[in-house]
Amino acid sequence: MNKQEGERIVDYFIVRDRETSIATNGSEYISLTLSNKDGVIRAKVWDVTEKQKEWLIKRSMIKVDALVTFYRGQRQLNIQRVRLVTDDDAVELNDLLNHASIPREDLWQELRMFIEDIESETLCELIKTLLKKKDIREKLTTIPAAKQYHHAYYAGLLEHIVTLCHVSAQLLQVYPQLNKDVILAVCILHDIGKTKALSDPVVPDYTTNGELIGHVVLSIEMIIEGAIEAGISTDHHEVLAVKHCILSGHVQDSVQSGVNSKTAEAIFFQHINKLDNQLNALFMIGNETNEEWTFSPMFKRRMYTSGN
Amino acid sequence: MNKQEGERIVDYFIVRDRETSIATNGSEYISLTLSNKDGVIRAKVWDVTEKQKEWLIKRSMIKVDALVTFYRGQRQLNIQRVRLVTDDDAVELNDLLNHASIPREDLWQELRMFIEDIESETLCELIKTLLKKKDIREKLTTIPAAKQYHHAYYAGLLEHIVTLCHVSAQLLQVYPQLNKDVILAVCILHDIGKTKALSDPVVPDYTTNGELIGHVVLSIEMIIEGAIEAGISTDHHEVLAVKHCILSGHVQDSVQSGVNSKTAEAIFFQHINKLDNQLNALFMIGNETNEEWTFSPMFKRRMYTSGN
Amino acid sequence: MNKQEGERIVDYFIVRDRETSIATNGSEYISLTLSNKDGVIRAKVWDVTEKQKEWLIKRSMIKVDALVTFYRGQRQLNIQRVRLVTDDDAVELNDLLNHASIPREDLWQELRMFIEDIESETLCELIKTLLKKKDIREKLTTIPAAKQYHHAYYAGLLEHIVTLCHVSAQLLQVYPQLNKDVILAVCILHDIGKTKALSDPVVPDYTTNGELIGHVVLSIEMIIEGAIEAGISTDHHEVLAVKHCILSGHVQDSVQSGVNSKTAEAIFFQHINKLDNQLNALFMIGNETNEEWTFSPMFKRRMYTSGN
Amino acid sequence: MNKQEGERIVDYFIVRDRETSIATNGSEYISLTLSNKDGVIRAKVWDVTEKQKEWLIKRSMIKVDALVTFYRGQRQLNIQRVRLVTDDDAVELNDLLNHASIPREDLWQELRMFIEDIESETLCELIKTLLKKKDIREKLTTIPAAKQYHHAYYAGLLEHIVTLCHVSAQLLQVYPQLNKDVILAVCILHDIGKTKALSDPVVPDYTTNGELIGHVVLSIEMIIEGAIEAGISTDHHEVLAVKHCILSGHVQDSVQSGVNSKTAEAIFFQHINKLDNQLNALFMIGNETNEEWTFSPMFKRRMYTSGN
Amino acid sequence: MNKQEGERIVDYFIVRDRETSIATNGSEYISLTLSNKDGVIRAKVWDVTEKQKEWLIKRSMIKVDALVTFYRGQRQLNIQRVRLVTDDDAVELNDLLNHASIPREDLWQELRMFIEDIESETLCELIKTLLKKKDIREKLTTIPAAKQYHHAYYAGLLEHIVTLCHVSAQLLQVYPQLNKDVILAVCILHDIGKTKALSDPVVPDYTTNGELIGHVVLSIEMIIEGAIEAGISTDHHEVLAVKHCILSGHVQDSVQSGVNSKTAEAIFFQHINKLDNQLNALFMIGNETNEEWTFSPMFKRRMYTSGN
Amino acid sequence: MNKQEGERIVDYFIVRDRETSIATNGSEYISLTLSNKDGVIRAKVWDVTEKQKEWLIKRSMIKVDALVTFYRGQRQLNIQRVRLVTDDDAVELNDLLNHASIPREDLWQELRMFIEDIESETLCELIKTLLKKKDIREKLTTIPAAKQYHHAYYAGLLEHIVTLCHVSAQLLQVYPQLNKDVILAVCILHDIGKTKALSDPVVPDYTTNGELIGHVVLSIEMIIEGAIEAGISTDHHEVLAVKHCILSGHVQDSVQSGVNSKTAEAIFFQHINKLDNQLNALFMIGNETNEEWTFSPMFKRRMYTSGN
Repeated sequence: MNKQEGERIVDYFIVRDRETSIATNGSEYISLTLSNKDGVIRAKVWDVTEKQKEWLIKRSMIKVDALVTFYRGQRQLNIQRVRLVTDDDAVELNDLLNHASIPREDLWQELRMFIEDIESETLCELIKTLLKKKDIREKLTTIPAAKQYHHAYYAGLLEHIVTLCHVSAQLLQVYPQLNKDVILAVCILHDIGKTKALSDPVVPDYTTNGELIGHVVLSIEMIIEGAIEAGISTDHHEVLAVKHCILSGHVQDSVQSGVNSKTAEAIFFQHINKLDNQLNALFMIGNETNEEWTFSPMFKRRMYTSGN
Repeated sequence: MNKQEGERIVDYFIVRDRETSIATNGSEYISLTLSNKDGVIRAKVWDVTEKQKEWLIKRSMIKVDALVTFYRGQRQLNIQRVRLVTDDDAVELNDLLNHASIPREDLWQELRMFIEDIESETLCELIKTLLKKKDIREKLTTIPAAKQYHHAYYAGLLEHIVTLCHVSAQLLQVYPQLNKDVILAVCILHDIGKTKALSDPVVPDYTTNGELIGHVVLSIEMIIEGAIEAGISTDHHEVLAVKHCILSGHVQDSVQSGVNSKTAEAIFFQHINKLDNQLNALFMIGNETNEEWTFSPMFKRRMYTSGN
Repeated sequence: MNKQEGERIVDYFIVRDRETSIATNGSEYISLTLSNKDGVIRAKVWDVTEKQKEWLIKRSMIKVDALVTFYRGQRQLNIQRVRLVTDDDAVELNDLLNHASIPREDLWQELRMFIEDIESETLCELIKTLLKKKDIREKLTTIPAAKQYHHAYYAGLLEHIVTLCHVSAQLLQVYPQLNKDVILAVCILHDIGKTKALSDPVVPDYTTNGELIGHVVLSIEMIIEGAIEAGISTDHHEVLAVKHCILSGHVQDSVQSGVNSKTAEAIFFQHINKLDNQLNALFMIGNETNEEWTFSPMFKRRMYTSGN
Repeated sequence: MNKQEGERIVDYFIVRDRETSIATNGSEYISLTLSNKDGVIRAKVWDVTEKQKEWLIKRSMIKVDALVTFYRGQRQLNIQRVRLVTDDDAVELNDLLNHASIPREDLWQELRMFIEDIESETLCELIKTLLKKKDIREKLTTIPAAKQYHHAYYAGLLEHIVTLCHVSAQLLQVYPQLNKDVILAVCILHDIGKTKALSDPVVPDYTTNGELIGHVVLSIEMIIEGAIEAGISTDHHEVLAVKHCILSGHVQDSVQSGVNSKTAEAIFFQHINKLDNQLNALFMIGNETNEEWTFSPMFKRRMYTSGN
Repeated sequence: MNKQEGERIVDYFIVRDRETSIATNGSEYISLTLSNKDGVIRAKVWDVTEKQKEWLIKRSMIKVDALVTFYRGQRQLNIQRVRLVTDDDAVELNDLLNHASIPREDLWQELRMFIEDIESETLCELIKTLLKKKDIREKLTTIPAAKQYHHAYYAGLLEHIVTLCHVSAQLLQVYPQLNKDVILAVCILHDIGKTKALSDPVVPDYTTNGELIGHVVLSIEMIIEGAIEAGISTDHHEVLAVKHCILSGHVQDSVQSGVNSKTAEAIFFQHINKLDNQLNALFMIGNETNEEWTFSPMFKRRMYTSGN
Repeated sequence: MNKQEGERIVDYFIVRDRETSIATNGSEYISLTLSNKDGVIRAKVWDVTEKQKEWLIKRSMIKVDALVTFYRGQRQLNIQRVRLVTDDDAVELNDLLNHASIPREDLWQELRMFIEDIESETLCELIKTLLKKKDIREKLTTIPAAKQYHHAYYAGLLEHIVTLCHVSAQLLQVYPQLNKDVILAVCILHDIGKTKALSDPVVPDYTTNGELIGHVVLSIEMIIEGAIEAGISTDHHEVLAVKHCILSGHVQDSVQSGVNSKTAEAIFFQHINKLDNQLNALFMIGNETNEEWTFSPMFKRRMYTSGN
């Protein structure tokens, strides 16, 4: 959003979070976190009424008339008028969601073609057994890859998966020694546990499963369950290779699994996964700012965002 | 072993490892790693014959006539005569194995009683489904808890499990808020993945599964498979609680799982597990030395071993 | 406290901290940190008078009439009326203090019995010499074990000490090789330096001694002084064993002493001390929240607080 | 090398290191480190003569007749006969050097084509100014990329550079937002400081410059000198971008430069550089072993080397 | 500043930063960061006019009439009246700048004398070539040594340099083995890159060069450029020694260069540099507080500031 | 020692350590660690007799006739003839000890003068009370400052103390704000605990006290005992300041005390202490080598030792 301080904005938003407080003059106000395709923005509604408190809740779609202010260097909306979206607005949830730059349907088509490229019947069967379950497929193709920082938008995980497949396809020409089937299967399945770890695609939150087991081991659990259902040995050498890549491929401070990468495919996946996550994170910051330098909480430093 | 330098020793041993080399005078010799109930010791056979090279192999049971020497502060045997054990020796593998101070059968009886103490039918059923498989039960009750450092002897894992059950039973009286069923199930199942990660009870080595997946996640995999077989949901809240304790309970540098402890039971288990491992490690060192201070590779410092 | 947003509350509190500010309308207001048995809460007094500024100070006992609001997810009081407690209120400091679940007198009785259990005359004499000093005994039995996070309430240190004695008594049955006298003495004396490091039991703050020397080495200093007074050699082998456990038992990032644990008793104490501190910290969080998941600044992650 | 213990080997080698010692029988022997295309191997010459001590020196090319032995799991040669290579042997240094799998001339051709791909005149000019110096070009196309672990063979650095160019060319199709010119220039120049940090291509050692300044900052120094010579501002925005990628791209423990990556190109380069180094390191280990698992000092763990 | 809460203050300031916000009553206000010789202070202007917004900008010199308030323990000004400084005020920028306790001219004289003490013609020539450039000399003698924490005032860098020269001169008498010329040259040149990394002496900010290259490597770059200009080899052994000390002398977490100190001079410089930075940081805190204990963001702990 | 390989050496040594082994030809030999003023060297006696085994023990003074060999790059003696030193040799222990470059008596005189410089009666009295005890004074003036690495020679601690006093005297002129009395007292007393932590000046080993308490806290204990004996309050503000500097001044990995430095004097002492230890360590390496670069186990890297 390029609006300057003091400019007026009239637009539609989803309510992502809200909190009621009492102002220094004793009247009640609501602090909102709103989002639409342009990103996330904080907002305030002063002298809020009891009625407003009833429908200004998480997940509501609203129309807002507000002035742009700045607080600690970040835009914030001073809401003058606000109401729920009605049918007349002809606005749908999908219109308000920030999502991947490529349509979800196209990404899904690309993913299916990459699955066709896998020659191993075992891995093909494993992937199809998991993706033919409607709830898994539905969620895998809609949730973000992370709550924030990278691919943090509708169908972000699907975009991440398909990009990793493209990266792999390109680099397998440079490193032909690597096992293509294992790598593609890892690209496709490595975050499948997030379908159980994240609550929903619009306002994602960690589930109890996500908190207690973590998405890495949840991915392993789902692969085990899929293999059993498909009649594949859970110790099949290709399944083992895939599991190892997933377990060793998440080496971030807070999400460490039991083993370090010990195969060429695991080393390969670890680096392309980090590469795509970090590049996407930097592109996300760049899209939201007009500054040349922007502080990034993920990188924990100021990043060059070029200012245009 | 208390033998002094230069003393003669005649005894039975298992060959744990061997390597052939050529001495500075051009003749061949063999370096052996031997073990019996008294611990592990290195040995050398000079001017080795072709015949000897054939039967002086890993897992052989041998009778040795040797002189004690010291090399870099450690005892070493200078073998004068050596032959394979014969029936006449009336020596069995079991006689040569260092094992837990309590007979394996008694430990197994104690373990069964702790299983009876679990009131949750879900957890009871899960444990019994896993332990009634002969290969799992056989291995769980014979392998060491680790290749070296702590409980590194025959049935060491079983002793570790039973000790943890005793510790838990004692401390549940001080902390009655904790869930007894979850804690006992964790004590019993937390290292079950080691039955797949370690090759065998006598000369344990890491399996490919152990290297690529690690025993922590292997434990989770086996619980998932056991639950599916027993018709229990893999997300059942008690199963989830057990899995969380196992995943978060192994916080050693080289074996980290996906999550930190987030429940009271997980915190509890993490500390008693470390306590028992470290105390056992120190007791093991103390049993093998007569020195007041002994360097421990596990603790990475000199430990007080009191000299008696 | 279970009050919802907007509910009215009339209750007694201790003032733990206060700060004067000027509101955006130019009038002065006071931000207070209050506490009573239900825990700690922040509060605001708007349009404060000069008189109020005189008596609304640290350690004042006050009666408050306020509305509950929320700020960044935490309850806060919007104080409408406030006055000092008077004799007519029949409220005593003790009534407002959050303290251990077991009466301080009972804890003291238990502690005395554990001291009787110590068979070493040297250690018994050392403990008694220190505890018979009124100022030490008084403080040891009233201060919290920490300013926040764990056992952070009246007599919290005493409760921590007695719990550790119980834990030790239970586990000595599982690990009979350990020296009971040394362990009990360590449980009782390990935090005695906190009587010099913390200013007072009600609004504890670090003393200059606490900042410059730290409570660990202060404990050692007090043991040295006690030993000299009791005519015990400061290098007596049991005193040395106790000092080693204390020095090596505090392995937190910010409070490290000179040595790592090198004896079985030191290893033992280190783990039970952490166990009790962490469990108590989690129980404290659980008591103050109705949420299923609560962020803990001590654990630096969301903890499962079960929501009931 | 696949020779078994006790087999005879007759072959040519370069002497990389040697040390004289006195055996337990009082006679002198020499320990050698030898290498040829098959890798590096240790060897011993017993009862060495004064003459032999004169010509068995670093960099000598020798012909050896030896028996294969094993010491601590590694092959070692027990040399029976040894002499210097003569003209009659028709063996050249080049024949004995382990080098990149692609001929150095072909790699150089590929590198020149990548330079042609750079559209920025500034960067093109900078690269050509540096590479047209004979000593730099000579060394850049012959030295290994590292003394050991990865690309540690003749022309290893050149192979590393060309592989990075290929990786970049492939991935720029997936990430078209990245600046191709900057990335190619970084691939080509990022290790140019190694031409000053490493002593020579055959038996590379760190120079005083390499020890005191490190190859990262030496690369920056050479770019500065090249820019001055070519009449380019040392702060030109493209030169700045290249320098930043180089400085931030070496995040290994022992070789850290002043800044973290803050641009998309720097993030990109950092990951593909690590990817190529680690894959090459693993391939190098795989080529030298027949074992399924091999300990790697670089990865500090056992790596899967598949055993064929 | 010793003003108490509620006291009035009338004084001159420089505007260092400003931000416009909208108050809860809908009116606009400006948050300012002001500074003068007494340090830095935050301030608020309520009900700000459009005119005021035009001239209340970064770098403005203003006269303020305000009341002192406290916010989170820090003084803050509640501005009642404010206007730009006029000629009649007879206030100059210099009067408002906090600077080194010794006049900049005297420091410059001292620095010149230390340069005269250097006997090496090479190092003398190198330093003079760099310092005779007006823009470098101008900036080196006016900028602070850091944006905050230590020597963070006008000519702070010059004071830091001169103090290091004094420290070196004193300690060379205790350690006469050290190379005086190298050490003095390092003291003088070690932060010369800050003249390119920091934007200006009054409101210093990081330049793009500073962000992308860092001041350590910028210092090396400038020395290289200076040497080339002066006709000195960039690898001259004394220049190499100086560069090594600079590269290895900045071992702070966020600013690490490529090498650890490997010479006596580098070890020496590393410690005296840290010593002067930390002592100055503590003295700066002490000057700004009347408290006995003050939290320091640089030291990340409460420091003893003695209260007078 | 500059002897080349194969040269003969006839000299006197102290035996610091010995070990008996059996050679590959079955005969016994002894490995010795010897030292004299030139440093430490390893040696071997082949075909050792029973008699020799009796008197070739730790602390023996011997005369040796040997050939110089090299093993793993280090000189080693191949002893041909060896006997105990006799009265006729007119060699005394003192002649064989490597010690500080300044005579111990002169260092003691200097130390006494620094004590006279302390104006605080409290600190003067404290120091004198401790140093007038014969066993403390005797040991403080003879032991090394560390077992190896720095000041690891006879009276090394005394030299370290006196050098620190000189450094302080010099720098107090640059930083006159610092408290001279506290700093001098810290220089003198900071390692007094080493008189209890190290066994003896010739072949120093850690005592049980040293292992269990560590020399830092032992220093505090001795200061407490000294203060009590001298009738000084153990919390006297100057004693407190000294204790704080000692506790916070040892920030090495293995020897951490309870607190970080929080006073100017503590910061000062921490840096000069590290400076002197590291410079001395580097000078020690330099004295023992003729190489330009030498690997240092303390610095864990190759250090520049200039080769002359």
